[in-house]
Amino acid sequence: MNEAALTLEGWYALHDFRKLDWSKWRLASAAERTDALNELQAFYSEWLEVENNKQGSSAVYSIVGQKADIVFMHLRESLQDLNELETAFNKTSFASYTIPAYSYVSVVELSNYLAKEGGDPMENPHVVARLKPVLPKADHICFYPMNKRRDGEDNWFMLSMDERKKLMLSHGLIGRSYAGKVRQIITGSVGFDNWEWGVTLFADDALQFKKLIYEMRFDEVSARYAEFGDFYVGNILDIDKLEQLLRI
Amino acid sequence: MNEAALTLEGWYALHDFRKLDWSKWRLASAAERTDALNELQAFYSEWLEVENNKQGSSAVYSIVGQKADIVFMHLRESLQDLNELETAFNKTSFASYTIPAYSYVSVVELSNYLAKEGGDPMENPHVVARLKPVLPKADHICFYPMNKRRDGEDNWFMLSMDERKKLMLSHGLIGRSYAGKVRQIITGSVGFDNWEWGVTLFADDALQFKKLIYEMRFDEVSARYAEFGDFYVGNILDIDKLEQLLRI
Amino acid sequence: MNEAALTLEGWYALHDFRKLDWSKWRLASAAERTDALNELQAFYSEWLEVENNKQGSSAVYSIVGQKADIVFMHLRESLQDLNELETAFNKTSFASYTIPAYSYVSVVELSNYLAKEGGDPMENPHVVARLKPVLPKADHICFYPMNKRRDGEDNWFMLSMDERKKLMLSHGLIGRSYAGKVRQIITGSVGFDNWEWGVTLFADDALQFKKLIYEMRFDEVSARYAEFGDFYVGNILDIDKLEQLLRI
Amino acid sequence: MNEAALTLEGWYALHDFRKLDWSKWRLASAAERTDALNELQAFYSEWLEVENNKQGSSAVYSIVGQKADIVFMHLRESLQDLNELETAFNKTSFASYTIPAYSYVSVVELSNYLAKEGGDPMENPHVVARLKPVLPKADHICFYPMNKRRDGEDNWFMLSMDERKKLMLSHGLIGRSYAGKVRQIITGSVGFDNWEWGVTLFADDALQFKKLIYEMRFDEVSARYAEFGDFYVGNILDIDKLEQLLRI
Amino acid sequence: MNEAALTLEGWYALHDFRKLDWSKWRLASAAERTDALNELQAFYSEWLEVENNKQGSSAVYSIVGQKADIVFMHLRESLQDLNELETAFNKTSFASYTIPAYSYVSVVELSNYLAKEGGDPMENPHVVARLKPVLPKADHICFYPMNKRRDGEDNWFMLSMDERKKLMLSHGLIGRSYAGKVRQIITGSVGFDNWEWGVTLFADDALQFKKLIYEMRFDEVSARYAEFGDFYVGNILDIDKLEQLLRI
Repeated sequence: MNEAALTLEGWYALHDFRKLDWSKWRLASAAERTDALNELQAFYSEWLEVENNKQGSSAVYSIVGQKADIVFMHLRESLQDLNELETAFNKTSFASYTIPAYSYVSVVELSNYLAKEGGDPMENPHVVARLKPVLPKADHICFYPMNKRRDGEDNWFMLSMDERKKLMLSHGLIGRSYAGKVRQIITGSVGFDNWEWGVTLFADDALQFKKLIYEMRFDEVSARYAEFGDFYVGNILDIDKLEQLLRI
Repeated sequence: MNEAALTLEGWYALHDFRKLDWSKWRLASAAERTDALNELQAFYSEWLEVENNKQGSSAVYSIVGQKADIVFMHLRESLQDLNELETAFNKTSFASYTIPAYSYVSVVELSNYLAKEGGDPMENPHVVARLKPVLPKADHICFYPMNKRRDGEDNWFMLSMDERKKLMLSHGLIGRSYAGKVRQIITGSVGFDNWEWGVTLFADDALQFKKLIYEMRFDEVSARYAEFGDFYVGNILDIDKLEQLLRI
Repeated sequence: MNEAALTLEGWYALHDFRKLDWSKWRLASAAERTDALNELQAFYSEWLEVENNKQGSSAVYSIVGQKADIVFMHLRESLQDLNELETAFNKTSFASYTIPAYSYVSVVELSNYLAKEGGDPMENPHVVARLKPVLPKADHICFYPMNKRRDGEDNWFMLSMDERKKLMLSHGLIGRSYAGKVRQIITGSVGFDNWEWGVTLFADDALQFKKLIYEMRFDEVSARYAEFGDFYVGNILDIDKLEQLLRI
Repeated sequence: MNEAALTLEGWYALHDFRKLDWSKWRLASAAERTDALNELQAFYSEWLEVENNKQGSSAVYSIVGQKADIVFMHLRESLQDLNELETAFNKTSFASYTIPAYSYVSVVELSNYLAKEGGDPMENPHVVARLKPVLPKADHICFYPMNKRRDGEDNWFMLSMDERKKLMLSHGLIGRSYAGKVRQIITGSVGFDNWEWGVTLFADDALQFKKLIYEMRFDEVSARYAEFGDFYVGNILDIDKLEQLLRI
Repeated sequence: MNEAALTLEGWYALHDFRKLDWSKWRLASAAERTDALNELQAFYSEWLEVENNKQGSSAVYSIVGQKADIVFMHLRESLQDLNELETAFNKTSFASYTIPAYSYVSVVELSNYLAKEGGDPMENPHVVARLKPVLPKADHICFYPMNKRRDGEDNWFMLSMDERKKLMLSHGLIGRSYAGKVRQIITGSVGFDNWEWGVTLFADDALQFKKLIYEMRFDEVSARYAEFGDFYVGNILDIDKLEQLLRI
């Protein structure tokens, strides 16, 4: 059976990392800042409504350090929906106070390694709930993209399905031991962005990100076969905290 | 027989990725925006006319995420034609609201691995139609450049022609299994740009990009021998959607 | 026993490297510069107060060369605290005369390789003092991030715990031979930033940085298993020297 | 006999790639544009005069794609001459409408692998003509820098002179089979720029660049030992075409 | 005996590469340019005085190509001295017409491989003269940073001291064969900057840089164990030539 057919995909995902142009924001008049904030808050409310209507989900977090100030993570039915959302945001006056810092395009994915026999999985409400999830509103977010390595003896894609299944099983066990502490959403990005997968983690205790990823690094799947992009970590921004972040 | 002689080339290709300078666009007066849009639309119409006259082909798509906002893909008879088109575009007022994001220079190519004996292939209308194609107006585009690897044991260019032929055959079979779902245009860029090939895919269902490329990644040609550049994915922009994208 | 459980974490760390926008600073009026300096000095005093209250620690150093002009290193109880500090700083007028140059997010860490049996280490005041340290006010700082290598035969994470313990022991001996000359603070950044660890060294004689790191480089842990990011070196900036640096 | 002594060097080379600042150029008044063009044309004439006087040679080509708009390639007697030329150009008003995109510093070189016994080669007019060449005014240019690889088993610089000679011989045969189609100027840049060699190709049919380089890539010298930088391709700009490119 | 103890260090070094902001310089009034030049010349005189007083040394060269326009190389007693010099320069009006391009922080170093037995080397005036050198005022400068490789079988730091000594001996012989043609100053940068060493070469004939480095590249120390950063080459700028470079 072919590899691609065993993977299930759900909502498309856009991670939109932005820096604030603090100099420009400071120079804006109070009225301009109020207008920009109002536009942003209107968007935020709209995103919550889409989430309530189960047509997508959004999460807004600050990012610690200089890589970005805010990440907007959006799940939507299609690439067109994501593109429209992105364009609408770019047209706001608020967006003109931000500088694009990084973005990631992917699609929520359930791995074929976990596939069970029988029935159409898209009829299974547990599967659908994982493919079209409501993004957690945990205290912290952690995002990083990754590849499976194809390097000399360490070539994931030259392993047999059985070898990969076995390796992923032990990998999954580590993940499961963090149940209740870390929620993980895997998005596939082959053909959509520069890495093969995006990993988005949510936790109320940020240390659990470190412990989970560090423990996994000793697991052969990561130790021999994983390549990682940049790591982003941040704190939740509900509508009040977002306003507080921007208040001068 | 030498390798280069077995490859057929058709139209030259320019992929021109642009970001919109949204801040500048917002600050422009309505009249300035109208002028810029009119210039852009006039160019778009001109490109369609060239296509109707079978002197080239063009496709315009949005790009999802921050890497770019729009890609203009152009096929033309010569590098001079592409250069003139590019320069004419750079002189428009619309161009002054864009920021170059990435470009790729290549030429439509049919691989020597598929070569059949007998006759001048340029006399074969099916071959010519593939070398000078009308670009599909599918809902989605996917572009990425790639190299064949030359790394220790994994050195594509040290394999014999027979080994490469055998490997490409199985690779081609995967591609063919997506017939009707994904249309693929291969362009060669050795000597023209930083990678050896450009791959441009067109599909009405963007998920098929992911499935095709992911399935191929387990094939030895990709698993051991492929190196990939950045991936771009987007949605079609006919003249109306383009205007809608830019309307403020 | 799992790897992650053996590591102890203390305060979160933000290294905030900034360039001065000298042109903008020169163009500012004397009054604007005074205002900006007053804001900066108020912050500096606040950081010292937090340090006196044992709720965190801060250190301010110049950086030699063009990579940055100043580094603000902050230790705080949580990512939220660091984020608030960072945002408050970004809102100052002084910040508008700086350009972000590099940052690093991590958490003070004691390695599991040094773990001793018995008792809750967080009850041990010596352990707590190392996890929540007062940053030295030495004449010089040196910072660099690093990974343990996962490359073919040189894969740290595929070694057994015993092999790693043995290797780290000899590594630690070199470090200890610089006791009194170089003070070292290790921060873990798996899941928080792009490298696995940050190393911050403090010394009154900058040459000792070179001697320590060079000697370690011949040690197998570094020679075979270490990968290094950028190195930053600088001189202490107490409140007077900071004012002097900025005086025009 | 030592390696360096077997290499012959001629004129120094500067490849000066520039982007046009199209926005600034459009905003300039007609008078400013005329002044800038006049300055540029005066320089162009001066370069032709130097060429006529056999004190150097220059070539001006457009570059296709976003990497650059124009490349000025200059050969001169010394690094001082190149530096003065560069500085004089930077002082023109025309230069202020350009943005430096890439440059390459090297020296025309004849390889020791082709060395013949007997006599002072600098007395040989054929050798001198190749070391101090008049740059072709072909329709197209192609430039790329390259290294010989030093990577594990594939280490060019650990081969014996005899092995290298044998490999270069077969390499040279491919090059010679393009005689009349592609003219090749090799410049050495060890100690002058970031790669070991620069390759500048000239042809009236741009496809020949692709065919030559692709064919060579299967040759062991390239397949195992070559590393390539960015590729630039473009069209000739005589003084009229240059003026046409810039006319708005 | 430990490795670090065998290395001797002298003056600290700052290589400060700057681009000229030609557009801004052209737009400045004659009076502004005169003021800026006066400030620069005053600094230049001050540097010469420090050199005369044997408290340091400075060299100023142009750089050919777009990487930079000028390099200021300074040797001083301490990192604080370098930092103060750098800050003072950044406060000049001249500095506001420059754009930082690259910098390197290191310390003049004599290698332990050349160490002889007996006596305190710092009492030896020949050693001190090499550790605290007057920078040559040769016609040309060449600078590049480098690492010793740690890659699989090619790991310099896993070799025994004896193996390294033997390899460095043959390396040194090549260097010595260029005595009188090329003067070489090695600076160590472990812990100070991103590479392990900086190499600064001075020669009246720039071709000798190429010949020396090319010949060394076939030597096993370079062929198997050296990794190189960017190369910069330039021409001397005494106070008159500097003024000439800047005159518009």
